[in-house]
Amino acid sequence: MSDERQRTRRPGGRSARVGAAVHRAALDLMAERGYGTFTVGDVASRAGVADTSVYRRWGTLEALLVDVAITWLTAQSPIPDTGSLDGDLRAYAAGVARDLAGPDALAILRLIIALDAAGPDGVQARGEFFAERSRQIQDMLDRARTRGERPPEVLDILDHILAPMYIRVLFGADLTPDYADTLADRLLRIM
Amino acid sequence: MSDERQRTRRPGGRSARVGAAVHRAALDLMAERGYGTFTVGDVASRAGVADTSVYRRWGTLEALLVDVAITWLTAQSPIPDTGSLDGDLRAYAAGVARDLAGPDALAILRLIIALDAAGPDGVQARGEFFAERSRQIQDMLDRARTRGERPPEVLDILDHILAPMYIRVLFGADLTPDYADTLADRLLRIM
Repeated sequence: MSDERQRTRRPGGRSARVGAAVHRAALDLMAERGYGTFTVGDVASRAGVADTSVYRRWGTLEALLVDVAITWLTAQSPIPDTGSLDGDLRAYAAGVARDLAGPDALAILRLIIALDAAGPDGVQARGEFFAERSRQIQDMLDRARTRGERPPEVLDILDHILAPMYIRVLFGADLTPDYADTLADRLLRIM
Repeated sequence: MSDERQRTRRPGGRSARVGAAVHRAALDLMAERGYGTFTVGDVASRAGVADTSVYRRWGTLEALLVDVAITWLTAQSPIPDTGSLDGDLRAYAAGVARDLAGPDALAILRLIIALDAAGPDGVQARGEFFAERSRQIQDMLDRARTRGERPPEVLDILDHILAPMYIRVLFGADLTPDYADTLADRLLRIM
């Protein structure tokens, strides 16, 4: 154990491999069985690591799951900086549509929604997720305002870009690049 | 049992009471523990009825759950008929916002989303839910077209009225009557 603790300090080494394996196991369990049906022990066993490795690094299942969600989101949905609000909104909507077409998207969305029912840890986790998400989008809108454009609010993007796509994925409907562009168009029109 | 089977034929009698108790038990289990963590036996036991009463009437857990969702939806979100598209969309959005503020709304939304992961029965259940929902909304839009108005499509209502409200409830944000009116306004503006 003390040997392992030393190794977790080496970036890109065992620590990174354990992190990736634990994230993968948590995502697979979410996709197959859903939140509320598995424990830290199940995740650790599936990832081939000791329970204590998970507890030491994340503390709770909820903390692990929010890390999984935010890591995925940050890696998959980079915030564009095209030089115009129009370009940013279109690129952002297209990127979200592309990410949502990927294999883990439904499990991630279910995870974010399930965290809401996970008690205090889950509520805090959801709060952290939204704070992170809002900061990223606010930066994009601030750049538009600095250029003299009139951007929407962060919540308008949630309502008219993210919500329609999230609901379509959650309810099993298709997302096309055309559809993402239509949503960006409409948001620009109602500003 | 044969005695009970006879009684289920009497509307408003034991059959209605069993139906209400089973629906209540299913909703409570959804709210407390989530889909995938309880069986027909758990629902029956909580409702104080025999497992066979549930199986005979609904066949599967998924069939019971879609009945719960559609019954709730039909009772809670009547489709308005105010004589104008503008009036109908505003009344509809306000009604959905009001219903979503109720105590069972989050459990119902989670139920609809969870059914998607429930295998063939769940997928069929989701399909039935959407067909029913779409028919109700299409009727409202057909009345507008008959009056010579230019209504949106059913999917536009999903995208710009329902999705923003569903996502706000699922993600724990507030819904106000003003907010519902803003969504109706915006949908009318982008038509």
